[in-house]
Amino acid sequence: MKKLIKGLREFKSSYFSANEELFEQLSHGQKPRVLFITCSDSRIDPNLITQAGLGELFVIRNAGNIIPPFGATNGGEGATIEYAIQALDIQQIIVCGHSHCGAMKGLMKLDSLRVEMPLVHDWLKYAEATRRLVKDNYSHYEGEELLEIIIAENVLTQIENLRTYPVIRSKLHQGQLSIYAWIYQIETGEILAYDPQKHAYVLPQNQLLSSEIDETLLSPPLNSNVEIHFTKTQQRPFQSSGELPIPTHEWFPMTVLSPEQMERIYRGSATK
Amino acid sequence: MKKLIKGLREFKSSYFSANEELFEQLSHGQKPRVLFITCSDSRIDPNLITQAGLGELFVIRNAGNIIPPFGATNGGEGATIEYAIQALDIQQIIVCGHSHCGAMKGLMKLDSLRVEMPLVHDWLKYAEATRRLVKDNYSHYEGEELLEIIIAENVLTQIENLRTYPVIRSKLHQGQLSIYAWIYQIETGEILAYDPQKHAYVLPQNQLLSSEIDETLLSPPLNSNVEIHFTKTQQRPFQSSGELPIPTHEWFPMTVLSPEQMERIYRGSATK
Amino acid sequence: MKKLIKGLREFKSSYFSANEELFEQLSHGQKPRVLFITCSDSRIDPNLITQAGLGELFVIRNAGNIIPPFGATNGGEGATIEYAIQALDIQQIIVCGHSHCGAMKGLMKLDSLRVEMPLVHDWLKYAEATRRLVKDNYSHYEGEELLEIIIAENVLTQIENLRTYPVIRSKLHQGQLSIYAWIYQIETGEILAYDPQKHAYVLPQNQLLSSEIDETLLSPPLNSNVEIHFTKTQQRPFQSSGELPIPTHEWFPMTVLSPEQMERIYRGSATK
Amino acid sequence: MKKLIKGLREFKSSYFSANEELFEQLSHGQKPRVLFITCSDSRIDPNLITQAGLGELFVIRNAGNIIPPFGATNGGEGATIEYAIQALDIQQIIVCGHSHCGAMKGLMKLDSLRVEMPLVHDWLKYAEATRRLVKDNYSHYEGEELLEIIIAENVLTQIENLRTYPVIRSKLHQGQLSIYAWIYQIETGEILAYDPQKHAYVLPQNQLLSSEIDETLLSPPLNSNVEIHFTKTQQRPFQSSGELPIPTHEWFPMTVLSPEQMERIYRGSATK
Repeated sequence: MKKLIKGLREFKSSYFSANEELFEQLSHGQKPRVLFITCSDSRIDPNLITQAGLGELFVIRNAGNIIPPFGATNGGEGATIEYAIQALDIQQIIVCGHSHCGAMKGLMKLDSLRVEMPLVHDWLKYAEATRRLVKDNYSHYEGEELLEIIIAENVLTQIENLRTYPVIRSKLHQGQLSIYAWIYQIETGEILAYDPQKHAYVLPQNQLLSSEIDETLLSPPLNSNVEIHFTKTQQRPFQSSGELPIPTHEWFPMTVLSPEQMERIYRGSATK
Repeated sequence: MKKLIKGLREFKSSYFSANEELFEQLSHGQKPRVLFITCSDSRIDPNLITQAGLGELFVIRNAGNIIPPFGATNGGEGATIEYAIQALDIQQIIVCGHSHCGAMKGLMKLDSLRVEMPLVHDWLKYAEATRRLVKDNYSHYEGEELLEIIIAENVLTQIENLRTYPVIRSKLHQGQLSIYAWIYQIETGEILAYDPQKHAYVLPQNQLLSSEIDETLLSPPLNSNVEIHFTKTQQRPFQSSGELPIPTHEWFPMTVLSPEQMERIYRGSATK
Repeated sequence: MKKLIKGLREFKSSYFSANEELFEQLSHGQKPRVLFITCSDSRIDPNLITQAGLGELFVIRNAGNIIPPFGATNGGEGATIEYAIQALDIQQIIVCGHSHCGAMKGLMKLDSLRVEMPLVHDWLKYAEATRRLVKDNYSHYEGEELLEIIIAENVLTQIENLRTYPVIRSKLHQGQLSIYAWIYQIETGEILAYDPQKHAYVLPQNQLLSSEIDETLLSPPLNSNVEIHFTKTQQRPFQSSGELPIPTHEWFPMTVLSPEQMERIYRGSATK
Repeated sequence: MKKLIKGLREFKSSYFSANEELFEQLSHGQKPRVLFITCSDSRIDPNLITQAGLGELFVIRNAGNIIPPFGATNGGEGATIEYAIQALDIQQIIVCGHSHCGAMKGLMKLDSLRVEMPLVHDWLKYAEATRRLVKDNYSHYEGEELLEIIIAENVLTQIENLRTYPVIRSKLHQGQLSIYAWIYQIETGEILAYDPQKHAYVLPQNQLLSSEIDETLLSPPLNSNVEIHFTKTQQRPFQSSGELPIPTHEWFPMTVLSPEQMERIYRGSATK
């Protein structure tokens, strides 16, 4: 605690002092542009990894970055999502899993949790779709590789859950909401973002290096509530006309994931 | 999004590059010392305000830094608390409210939320003890002042709720857990910590300026399950022998809160 | 039934006849001073053991004298507590466990209840903090001794739960409510009351033998929401000024519990 | 509190001393014959009014002697009923309402409770069948008379609810359980018991004056789950053969209720 309390003093004398105007302004209200949903894991600092300033990220954190489907729980997730979309008019949501996730490891040995950590056990029920999908489709993987797949698929599972909320469903229908699937890799300090065209997690920032694409997130088609709006490497997920997404292979040099990794992640979606 | 994605690149090339060893180490596991429970509000960055490093804070964030009583919900809060205490062996919990909290404003106009934001409305049930206490005891306050009181009392309400969790109750009994009540004031960049002896929120860091007290959190009294362990200004809430807490008035120059603020926080009890 | 019906006649011709005025008076309303929460066990008669008259005790009875945390159930406990505090303005609550409690025995063999008595099994969830605390701290006890510890700790657990109710929290804050932890020992016909200073259950009546202390329950410390008001052996838990409680060892001859019993109840905390 | 604590001492020195053998015996276990469900009202002392000894009555008490239907709540009522029937093998249940019941008064002004006592408001949902029946069938009554009808009908409502519990249903089917509807009248000190043949609440003890009938509760017919087993004045509710109950008017001089009262109570059942 002493360290933290020294930190408070340090923060006040350095960061706060240098940015007093910002704090004055923030005290009048927040206008965050992104709802960032991630794990409670101590190794994640959303503001640090995105270099986002104060006031930019509205944050939900729980074990496993899990979002129970609408109506399934009466915990804080639903209320906080509703507040973000309805009261703050946030139009972008990032669901961010991460490597070495303890909750996802728990999903691999669920039975042992029943007695030891009953609340965690019950909570992982809302990642059961992940567990089942991986069990049915990736049975030949194990260990670290299996964990990576679980982590990657779970973010997609949670986005499916997220889509069941009334406010989310309505905003998606209006084309006023984009949802992104990210995975933070602790060992490389990198984010991989899901690319629905490629059905793979890819490095989003490569794109910005090579091109200065307009980042405006164009409206998804009217029926977009049946299509997930993931982070696109090219920052242009769908055309405004409501047409199908165009393949973007040529200007996306996918060098990040190994072919094996690609193949693995691909498999989950390839069944579609 | 473009800004965030640029931020990712920046983070990788600057912070990550400068701390590769840390990340390598973190990839092998986390060992956070503190569970930090705070609001989703975008103006709060727990790591920034405490200057805590990666790996130090295990974080729960939801609208209003609310912890439903054990058994009252099946959301992520209980599971994440259980994981923090049981799996990570965390021994210090900070519940941190903040000024200008939108959820607490909602508590002041609960009826209007029923239709507009039903999930938020239902979620605020777990702050009902706050609403009731403030209604019964601070009816002569209004506006900003009333909001401040609600925020301050709500942190204490949530600590009452926290104490009903089996893992919490057991660890408190063993004297292996300390719980601290904090309020982050956006406009001053300061934390006020609840001092149970003074029954007031005070600046914790003053203490460290004037004395170099060993920060080891000594054991709470025998059967600590009847005493809450709040953040003490002197960082030594109770003596290790299990004796009663000693008054610390002499070496605590209470200059932070204005007399009016003090009087206000006091008033609730002063009517006795 | 015949016996009971004969009893009704007997009651009418003896007790009722001798106290007609009392009944006339009671028919105009009740003004009980104490909410007495105890087990359904047939061996407990709250009015008999306290020699309280009709109209004095408002009584909640269920298996295990359990009070689920606020919001955790929609059973009668919360409503009855609310009615007692809000409508009847009761200012003293006794939570009274008892020796040989069948529900607490159930807590020791929870698994076997799942199939045989599913409602009892689920109900005992609200004593899970007791089970966990005892499992973690008293693992070297068994049989009758273990049961005694469970019974004693459970009363304290239920008081933690009780404190999460809005009406309770507000009244505690105002210093208008005192909560007492009792255990009724069937074999000796005695009540042991929890003494928070001694962290032990002691005989309350010894006190009254040796001193004629004003029984007025003085105000708890300011912000009593951080201090539980247990039954004090000396009937004067805290000084009215809001100062810290005074030790009362000198005038409390602790002769009731055997050293072994004392040691046992102490041990949970002694490991610190 | 001083009074209660003096009472404890008194109880120990008088009643306990005179009955030490009984207490010794009780410490080995309980074998109550009756589950007595009544209101928390301080003016009711089940053991006093029935002159039942310690160990005879297993008692549930909540506001309004309400038993939510099976599955409707997760409070203590269901678990305690299950324990009584399954673990203690109790074969007789008395649901005992009483005159001047505050909870039933609440049923007459439900809307005003929503804000003031929300838990009580929600709890009275399980007496909604009473409220509706009375509203639909007794609209021409008001004040005290209406309250009496509500109290009388509510006991029957709660018995309907009681019959939904698996253990109750099974035991009724086996003819091993009898359920009695009582009303305790504070002003007269008398119990009225529901007589299903007469469809009226009557004085049960009159019967025992005039005859020495075998009290054995004979098995109800196989389909007894569609017939409530109320207290019969003649202590012989149904014949073992499964025939319909015989009218018993000749040896039951119904002098207690006025014809108007009879008519009123009759009406509720006359619709059958």
